[in-house]
Amino acid sequence: MSDIETVLSTVDSNLDASIERLFDLLRIESISTDPAYAGECEKAGQWLVDTLNDLGFDASLHHTEGHPMVVAHHDGPDGAPHVLFYGHYDVQPVDPLDLWDTHPFQPDIIEVNGAKRLRGRGTSDDKGQLMTFVEACRSWKEATGALPCKVTILFEGEEESGSPSLLPFLAAHGEELKADLALVCDTNMWDASTPAIATALRGMASEEIVVHGPSRDLHSGYYGGAAQNPIHILSSILSALHNDKGRVTLDGFYEGVAPVPDDIRAMWDELGFSETEFLGDVGLKKTAGEVGYSALEHIWSRPTAEVNGVIGGYTGKGFKTVIPAIASAKVSFRLVGEQDPHKVIAAFHKHVETHLPDDCSVEYIPHGRSKATQLDYALPALKQASTALTEEWGKPAALIAMGGSIPIVGNFKRELGMDSLLVGFGLAEDNIHSPNEKYELASYHKGTRSWVRILQALADG
Amino acid sequence: MSDIETVLSTVDSNLDASIERLFDLLRIESISTDPAYAGECEKAGQWLVDTLNDLGFDASLHHTEGHPMVVAHHDGPDGAPHVLFYGHYDVQPVDPLDLWDTHPFQPDIIEVNGAKRLRGRGTSDDKGQLMTFVEACRSWKEATGALPCKVTILFEGEEESGSPSLLPFLAAHGEELKADLALVCDTNMWDASTPAIATALRGMASEEIVVHGPSRDLHSGYYGGAAQNPIHILSSILSALHNDKGRVTLDGFYEGVAPVPDDIRAMWDELGFSETEFLGDVGLKKTAGEVGYSALEHIWSRPTAEVNGVIGGYTGKGFKTVIPAIASAKVSFRLVGEQDPHKVIAAFHKHVETHLPDDCSVEYIPHGRSKATQLDYALPALKQASTALTEEWGKPAALIAMGGSIPIVGNFKRELGMDSLLVGFGLAEDNIHSPNEKYELASYHKGTRSWVRILQALADG
Repeated sequence: MSDIETVLSTVDSNLDASIERLFDLLRIESISTDPAYAGECEKAGQWLVDTLNDLGFDASLHHTEGHPMVVAHHDGPDGAPHVLFYGHYDVQPVDPLDLWDTHPFQPDIIEVNGAKRLRGRGTSDDKGQLMTFVEACRSWKEATGALPCKVTILFEGEEESGSPSLLPFLAAHGEELKADLALVCDTNMWDASTPAIATALRGMASEEIVVHGPSRDLHSGYYGGAAQNPIHILSSILSALHNDKGRVTLDGFYEGVAPVPDDIRAMWDELGFSETEFLGDVGLKKTAGEVGYSALEHIWSRPTAEVNGVIGGYTGKGFKTVIPAIASAKVSFRLVGEQDPHKVIAAFHKHVETHLPDDCSVEYIPHGRSKATQLDYALPALKQASTALTEEWGKPAALIAMGGSIPIVGNFKRELGMDSLLVGFGLAEDNIHSPNEKYELASYHKGTRSWVRILQALADG
Repeated sequence: MSDIETVLSTVDSNLDASIERLFDLLRIESISTDPAYAGECEKAGQWLVDTLNDLGFDASLHHTEGHPMVVAHHDGPDGAPHVLFYGHYDVQPVDPLDLWDTHPFQPDIIEVNGAKRLRGRGTSDDKGQLMTFVEACRSWKEATGALPCKVTILFEGEEESGSPSLLPFLAAHGEELKADLALVCDTNMWDASTPAIATALRGMASEEIVVHGPSRDLHSGYYGGAAQNPIHILSSILSALHNDKGRVTLDGFYEGVAPVPDDIRAMWDELGFSETEFLGDVGLKKTAGEVGYSALEHIWSRPTAEVNGVIGGYTGKGFKTVIPAIASAKVSFRLVGEQDPHKVIAAFHKHVETHLPDDCSVEYIPHGRSKATQLDYALPALKQASTALTEEWGKPAALIAMGGSIPIVGNFKRELGMDSLLVGFGLAEDNIHSPNEKYELASYHKGTRSWVRILQALADG
């Protein structure tokens, strides 16, 4: 048996134990955006440090102003490439809890139509995904006592809350983290049987705004009609973000947005994407947003403005005739091409202030800022990884774009001069960021096998 | 000493005990809009029944589909007029709790600039106000053993949540409740030294809407730009309720809205209302709403559309890039003149549906519906009460309009053919419906004395 066959069969025989290890990690409630869970984030980081040290890595926890970073190193053969694997151990909040079929932090396995799936918060995003790489390394070590590449690992705990500590950390630890290539496992396959490498990612700029009107909540009988209502002001601000063609109205918003090249669009057309099915799966019929673009073009190549949360006034049961003192919204912009997140936010502020009466004020709470990224199609590692995936899945890997944002990719390029290979095994229907998140067992199992092959392919050159 | 002097001096000597009795009632957490407090509402009703029976009324609790009604009867001298006194024992919710200086249901007395005030939820709206009448009756009984008029009392427990049981109750108990005149104590004085009788009240139509988009919460990276976002739809609906002149855009909304008669407007002008002070008190500078009207005209004579609450998506700490499945708002319309609340709501539904994409839906949750009301200036009781108030306060009573809605007034007129005399001792700065609600001790004390005098004046004819 060749090395690789031995390693792959080790993955297969380790599967049950491998799931148990993943479940240990999933039980840790590492919600990064809510300060109440800071201890759980620390615990998840420490769990990974311990796991990697057991595997023969030199791993340690690095504290930051937010949640800690996990950094681990393992040597490779002389002349072998050096890869930096990145993932995140933090997860999204779990509300609304009553829509979950099981407790989000008590993972289990169920069988649906003959296929097993893992259920729980983080199964797909991103604990399940990062563990495919850890478990691939485990099998390499168990089967051969070594790894085919030199491997550095970086796990952060703030990806779901804008990664505030990441840039300072890369700046301070650039020498320790720099490698020939970054590997990132936080993306999807094209579909359940077609592996994919994401070559383009949307960027993001997000901001919270709080509109302040009266100095206190008012009775709408005594003040209604005469006093400014912050909900009205906020509604005008949010409603005017788009025109009647669905285009974002901010000044200069589309600067740096280029049309999709014809050959890429042709490749996308061949993927056989069904808009009806994509939207039908979530109870919708027609593509929203800018007129003249398909749903796939929207998600992969067009920028957006989305309101992700809004609150103001009385929101309990029954009715309360109040004019609230404040109303607030969380707004995010998905960016493509060369759009500058800072310019977009500046234009957003200008937009907000245009709608603000003189005697009201606004407070801004900044969140993430990241540019979009695009991989060079001629990169040799892209071909190598693509071939390895094709061998595992029996189908050519699709080169796709992604609507989501993984800011780390731009940071690796700018701060450390590294390209990133985005290989993930999630599916669009994994309910990440929603109740009942899941990950197919096949994603976990064949994902682990895929990394075994990719490490070999990169080592072979 | 004449009867009336004896009774007034009994009010004065009873004051401390009278405050203690009010505090007992204030400690009952009778929030009507939240079903969790149903037991407290029942308790408040029973407390009033017990108190009135102790005073020699024939009082009882009447259960309804919602919170119970308190009905009490007391005979008067032969030929004396029969009055029906109305108040409500339910209170508004208390959130946000952290803005209260003291616990809302642990009332106390503080001294501010030499004047004592009672603090706590319901001190002003409406427990403190209704107790001025109960305590006036107590002093009449203690001092003379009798009441100068025949008195029926009706206290409801659903005024702050749209009074759903009131109309059916009036229909079923019309004969028992019908009197020559209704007295209502749920309004304000003109200012701290000027008593007032409210002769016009705005009506109200209120409704909750829930916009449904995708069948579940979506990740804005995977769906943003392609999927409908219910917060965007809701923002358009709410934003388009007003045009750029501040006028409500619903079809036919201003049907039945007449200009204020010149003589009434002249009376209002003489009140010396300061718009700068009125708005400055709540941190604002300029009158919002329809262009061309003063703040006083807005509140007393113009209809409004106000959004009283809005919620959708992620509203916790931090950020979550979600496209929510639903977003909702609570909207109320203050009505004047002959505006028909049912027509207004129908026009609102039409407005909502104009903004609704084909693959989204909306759910309506109706709340209150009441027409505006206007008292006849020639009513003899108006003159009698006005004289009594002038004697107590040493200043002529102002005949004012009110921006708030007291649906009972229209119901008494339509169902029982009774006019209502609206005499209240609240102040605009009482923070009703807000944190730190209060009631001046002078309002409570001189309010009680005022009712002693009004009962005498009505009896004298």
